Amino acid sequence: MSESTYAVVGTRPPRHDATDKVTGRAHYGADFQLTGMLHGFILRSPHAHAAIRRIDVSKAEAFPGVKAVVTSADLPESPEQMVDIGEGAMPLSYIRGNMLARSKVLYKGHAVAAVAAVSPHVAEEAASLIEVDYDVLPCALTVEDAMRDGAPVILPDLRTKEFGEQTGRPGNVAEHFRHVLGDAENGFTEADLVVEREFRTATVHQGYIEPHATTVLWNEDGHVLVWCSSQGAFTVRKATAAVLDLPVLRVSVTPLEIGGGFGGKIRIYLEPVAALLSKKSGRPVKIVMSRQDVFEGTGPTPGSHMRIKMGARKDGRITAAQAYLAYEAGAYPGAMVAPGAMCVFAAYDIPNVVIDGYDVVVNKPSTAAYRAPGATQAAFATESVVDEIAENLGLDPVEFRLMNAAKEGTRRADGPKFRRIGCVEVLEAMRNHPHYRAPLEGPNRGRGVAVGFWFNVGLASSCTISVNSDGTVNLLDGSVDLSGTRTSVSMQAAETLGLRAEDVRPSVGDTDSIGFTEVTGGSRTTYATGWAAVEAARDVIGQMKERAALLWETDAASVEFDRGVFRAGGRSITFQELAAQLDETGGPVVGRGAVNPSGAGGSFSGAIADVEVDPETGKVSVLRFTAVQDAGRAIHPSYVEGQMQGGSVQGIGWALNEEYFMSAEGAMLNSSWLDYRMPTSLDLPMIDTVIVEVPDPEHPFGVRGVGEANIVPPPAAVSNAVYRATGVRLYRLPMNPVAVMEALWQKESEPGGGSLHSDAAA
Amino acid sequence: MSESTYAVVGTRPPRHDATDKVTGRAHYGADFQLTGMLHGFILRSPHAHAAIRRIDVSKAEAFPGVKAVVTSADLPESPEQMVDIGEGAMPLSYIRGNMLARSKVLYKGHAVAAVAAVSPHVAEEAASLIEVDYDVLPCALTVEDAMRDGAPVILPDLRTKEFGEQTGRPGNVAEHFRHVLGDAENGFTEADLVVEREFRTATVHQGYIEPHATTVLWNEDGHVLVWCSSQGAFTVRKATAAVLDLPVLRVSVTPLEIGGGFGGKIRIYLEPVAALLSKKSGRPVKIVMSRQDVFEGTGPTPGSHMRIKMGARKDGRITAAQAYLAYEAGAYPGAMVAPGAMCVFAAYDIPNVVIDGYDVVVNKPSTAAYRAPGATQAAFATESVVDEIAENLGLDPVEFRLMNAAKEGTRRADGPKFRRIGCVEVLEAMRNHPHYRAPLEGPNRGRGVAVGFWFNVGLASSCTISVNSDGTVNLLDGSVDLSGTRTSVSMQAAETLGLRAEDVRPSVGDTDSIGFTEVTGGSRTTYATGWAAVEAARDVIGQMKERAALLWETDAASVEFDRGVFRAGGRSITFQELAAQLDETGGPVVGRGAVNPSGAGGSFSGAIADVEVDPETGKVSVLRFTAVQDAGRAIHPSYVEGQMQGGSVQGIGWALNEEYFMSAEGAMLNSSWLDYRMPTSLDLPMIDTVIVEVPDPEHPFGVRGVGEANIVPPPAAVSNAVYRATGVRLYRLPMNPVAVMEALWQKESEPGGGSLHSDAAA
Repeated sequence: MSESTYAVVGTRPPRHDATDKVTGRAHYGADFQLTGMLHGFILRSPHAHAAIRRIDVSKAEAFPGVKAVVTSADLPESPEQMVDIGEGAMPLSYIRGNMLARSKVLYKGHAVAAVAAVSPHVAEEAASLIEVDYDVLPCALTVEDAMRDGAPVILPDLRTKEFGEQTGRPGNVAEHFRHVLGDAENGFTEADLVVEREFRTATVHQGYIEPHATTVLWNEDGHVLVWCSSQGAFTVRKATAAVLDLPVLRVSVTPLEIGGGFGGKIRIYLEPVAALLSKKSGRPVKIVMSRQDVFEGTGPTPGSHMRIKMGARKDGRITAAQAYLAYEAGAYPGAMVAPGAMCVFAAYDIPNVVIDGYDVVVNKPSTAAYRAPGATQAAFATESVVDEIAENLGLDPVEFRLMNAAKEGTRRADGPKFRRIGCVEVLEAMRNHPHYRAPLEGPNRGRGVAVGFWFNVGLASSCTISVNSDGTVNLLDGSVDLSGTRTSVSMQAAETLGLRAEDVRPSVGDTDSIGFTEVTGGSRTTYATGWAAVEAARDVIGQMKERAALLWETDAASVEFDRGVFRAGGRSITFQELAAQLDETGGPVVGRGAVNPSGAGGSFSGAIADVEVDPETGKVSVLRFTAVQDAGRAIHPSYVEGQMQGGSVQGIGWALNEEYFMSAEGAMLNSSWLDYRMPTSLDLPMIDTVIVEVPDPEHPFGVRGVGEANIVPPPAAVSNAVYRATGVRLYRLPMNPVAVMEALWQKESEPGGGSLHSDAAA
Repeated sequence: MSESTYAVVGTRPPRHDATDKVTGRAHYGADFQLTGMLHGFILRSPHAHAAIRRIDVSKAEAFPGVKAVVTSADLPESPEQMVDIGEGAMPLSYIRGNMLARSKVLYKGHAVAAVAAVSPHVAEEAASLIEVDYDVLPCALTVEDAMRDGAPVILPDLRTKEFGEQTGRPGNVAEHFRHVLGDAENGFTEADLVVEREFRTATVHQGYIEPHATTVLWNEDGHVLVWCSSQGAFTVRKATAAVLDLPVLRVSVTPLEIGGGFGGKIRIYLEPVAALLSKKSGRPVKIVMSRQDVFEGTGPTPGSHMRIKMGARKDGRITAAQAYLAYEAGAYPGAMVAPGAMCVFAAYDIPNVVIDGYDVVVNKPSTAAYRAPGATQAAFATESVVDEIAENLGLDPVEFRLMNAAKEGTRRADGPKFRRIGCVEVLEAMRNHPHYRAPLEGPNRGRGVAVGFWFNVGLASSCTISVNSDGTVNLLDGSVDLSGTRTSVSMQAAETLGLRAEDVRPSVGDTDSIGFTEVTGGSRTTYATGWAAVEAARDVIGQMKERAALLWETDAASVEFDRGVFRAGGRSITFQELAAQLDETGGPVVGRGAVNPSGAGGSFSGAIADVEVDPETGKVSVLRFTAVQDAGRAIHPSYVEGQMQGGSVQGIGWALNEEYFMSAEGAMLNSSWLDYRMPTSLDLPMIDTVIVEVPDPEHPFGVRGVGEANIVPPPAAVSNAVYRATGVRLYRLPMNPVAVMEALWQKESEPGGGSLHSDAAA
């Protein structure tokens, strides 16, 4: 960490919301209650792909205690348009289709109808009386299934877009795009060593603790009121209004506390359905998902099929790289392959690159963002290949990366040139870390490293700050607090105003009370909402300079402010003293700030993983793990460390355990916490963290987002460690015991213990 | 009404909160629920004046279901200070003493202890087990009782302040002040006719429908969270923090909907008590008053004893006026005699005036504000005398008032000179109204007129406005909406922004989300919060000019805005079009406005009342009633008319029926709606209204407050009408059947039918 001249930034004050979170006072989605509230239940498709011939809701409607039943026929048929869903734009017809299926169900778990009743049990019982006639169709569950000739066509109207143009070609490939830099063919010719490998990753879920929950009241005045758990109230407002064909002013969304999102609570699933049930029943309607609903009905991260080819000279310079990335979109186009392609080679300065991305619909839930969406899959592939090349060239894997590391001015194949970034500094911190130099003894043990990148986003944020008479302030912003951002945003306001963090009381506003603010996601909140808070604080200071000027009968322009004290012409007054005199000098002071930065500084992260592989069972144990990340500026280092630890653990889970285990008919067979195995504290060592600070040049405090890049390297680092431990390289996630044992058996069955090192072509 | 060039101001759009109010969705104080919430009950004194020798709460504490019991011993002993309670400042010791009595109880209903239990019934039952040993003391219930020699001393430490100085003199007179203008003695000498009369008015209550209700959570982090019905969340915060000896940042107040206040929900009664119960029990605690609690435990308006002496020349010019105003403070100093003294002669331009005001403690609940506090009592007296003089001089009562009416430049005895006011215009509107010229035939019928003044206040208000992408806006202010101010404030924002009223979605913020805002009271909300909304809208326009300038590559200074359209150099863009481009031009736009106007333009009102007196029963029926008021500018005429009707009806109730009917021991004998008779729609004719518009020169739209002045004339107008109907003038309120019959009998018993006209001295 760099030396700091700040009083608040870089310190570790208690979270403003700590007490409510630990005492159970915090209100999450499912905690919300309204008088007369009904409970909704969503009937979901038992088939992965089927035509709907008929839906008969009459028995459900007649069931005692049922107040409303809705199907897709209740959704308005508004004209097609692109709707911003907080992770890019999506055609309204897809959003609507995912809300309640119309003519076809596209995945097991696809919502078909919904019931509102006096209790959740009555609603569930009544839903079981809804008769749906299905015509079951063959399904395609992976990109390879879906791209082969004769694959079942999932969306009959879909036409492939290729290189930005509509081809008119039907099929399951929604889009094929290509990024080109230099001349890859030429680059591979220049290489002394070329390695090409094929990779696959399974569908995994964000695994937030809190299931989706919403309560909606379609008020008698036509205004729709929503209380829900989400990553962004304004995005819920926008999408709900679009599906219901209402102006945004007619929808108000109050964000409740959120028990984890990781990208999975940006898109909406329940709000329009609950709204329609409320409209029909005249009562508020709450819907809370079960864990099975969450797994089967919400967007996981794409499974993928990838090929990475990289060439390097003997001197260690990478001359060319090529990527084939085919990601599962799930039922509707929109796989996170575009950001995957942005990140796949982002850590390296490579002159010749070609990247092909494929967005492929399959009969699984429509995929959604998951922490650095698309980047982890790609890094697993790239970093495995990089590791292999380093070994083949006899280079230290960190040194090899440093030799090729991206830096300020490096151009990515997808277009942008990096501004000041910390890739080199992260790699140097890894190289210099005791962990990297520590001996690792014992059989079946290995150490792997990897790096990863996430570009982070800026986007719109709003904040207001009101000054209290005692010189404390209230702060209102529009960012759902996923991870301590009440505090990280407040600290930036406090630093600007010369206050302590505890002098700021932060609140998260609803869509009626604060200006437009994008989702908490893309690692943007401490960056952009923090910046908005700085602007609001500056607006406060500007107004208070005028008050001081009034007291001193001077010009506001001559008043200076530094560390909580206003000064002019030898006189001075503290922020607190002046706050006590607002009444006499014109009234209250409210500051406002709103920003929409075009881009946040991207963040690099690195991981060092030590593992031990049990040769009897294939179980991989993580012995030691160090996460390194460029935070730009760590506003609250504890929360940065928490993000790094959390992302590392999710990456380890993805590496070793997690997957949607699917039947051939497209049913998820492990849709519970017992069967969908996420790592617990018992499975893991303490995750060590190293915060690197290469300040973002544009942000007032140099903040970079830190929420995502940390998940990117772990699967590759663990895989590289498994390789060092066993001599076996795995090309598929998860590397669970079965996968490891199969790889070990295959190695044993091959002459010379396998061809792992010899199929590299020079 | 004056012609208006406004598009929104002066129209009658639907109330933004109408649906919630009529469907029952609106949440009032008692509707609020929290998980684990306890219910509080307050034990009140059965005696009007008694020393407390001992309180034993042990049986109550042991009662099953009881979680906490508190007495005054639980209140912090913070040092004496003056605390702003929203209707001026009060010593902390008095506020604390009124919250829970310590060594003495000062009125029947004085809070003594409180219990929190699992249900209100358990709490009430347990409270009955609290043993309090009282030493009953003689009581003083009226100013005349309390001011006589040998009266029981209610506050042993009280020393009379006289003419602004402490005298060191003990007693029940907290203060005696005097305003002098010119030379009254000389003025009376110049008069051809002098009339002096003595008046008394009873204690009456504001009679809001909703009893006081609060829920408080003393959170584990030491933060006190309050949800309550009040006229101002910030005032509740300030007073609660003071009593609990906490910084204001440690108290957050969320204002719930309010079912009437009329000044009576400015001061707090329950919040610190519920907070202490919550602190002891660790649970949220709700306390809801009964109607009896409201009558006996909250502040009514003072009963009064007054003498008015006025002199006039034969030509109709008033030469001098003298007032003696002694008002009941209740248990603690702070009767509304100061504003009474400001208003008593405010309608008249009188060169020689002397006003003596007495603030007198009595053994009744500590009095509080009630709609134009102090002015109605005074106007009843003044306007009765004015009426008598006009009759004696043979002048039309309206013409006589017009001859002496206050106007711009007239100086009041309490100091200020009027700026532009509408007293003359109100009187002219009365004179020109068909009602005033209509014949009134039949026996026992009479017509009376009166005028009244309320000075209104300005004070601090804050507002923020956020622009939505569709060109609608969300508005947040800090003013509790008592009477449609969401709409009257929104309309001013809409007018400024060139929007429709329905394009603005208003919300009332809590103390965490909006800047400091004073109570809804003093007729200030549409005036001051509306002004803050105009400032916030102007801030929006300023920012949007910059956005337009960015689009047009020009200077923001060259961009003009008029009626929803930005223009520069021949180009134009509507507010809606530009709102859709905020993302591309820098992000969201949030405007902020805060004001603290030193004074609002005062409002004059007049009443014309036709009555019929039943000579058999003494019942006075109001046959026709016309209210005239200067609104400055009627933002929403329907709400102005509603205020005028409501104030008139309350004035009529005060005139004819309402009073605290007290036993000699100081018990209120009619503390229920059945026995405390307020007028209903069956008792009244439709109240006709005439809005006069003499714009306030300082307010952006010329608004004057309209909430209060309308209650001032009715008692005098009704009394003057009763006189015209019967030949009997009443000098005491209420003029209920008993009082009327006694006056009629007395007139009959006197030679010549009484000396009503002859005791005027020339």
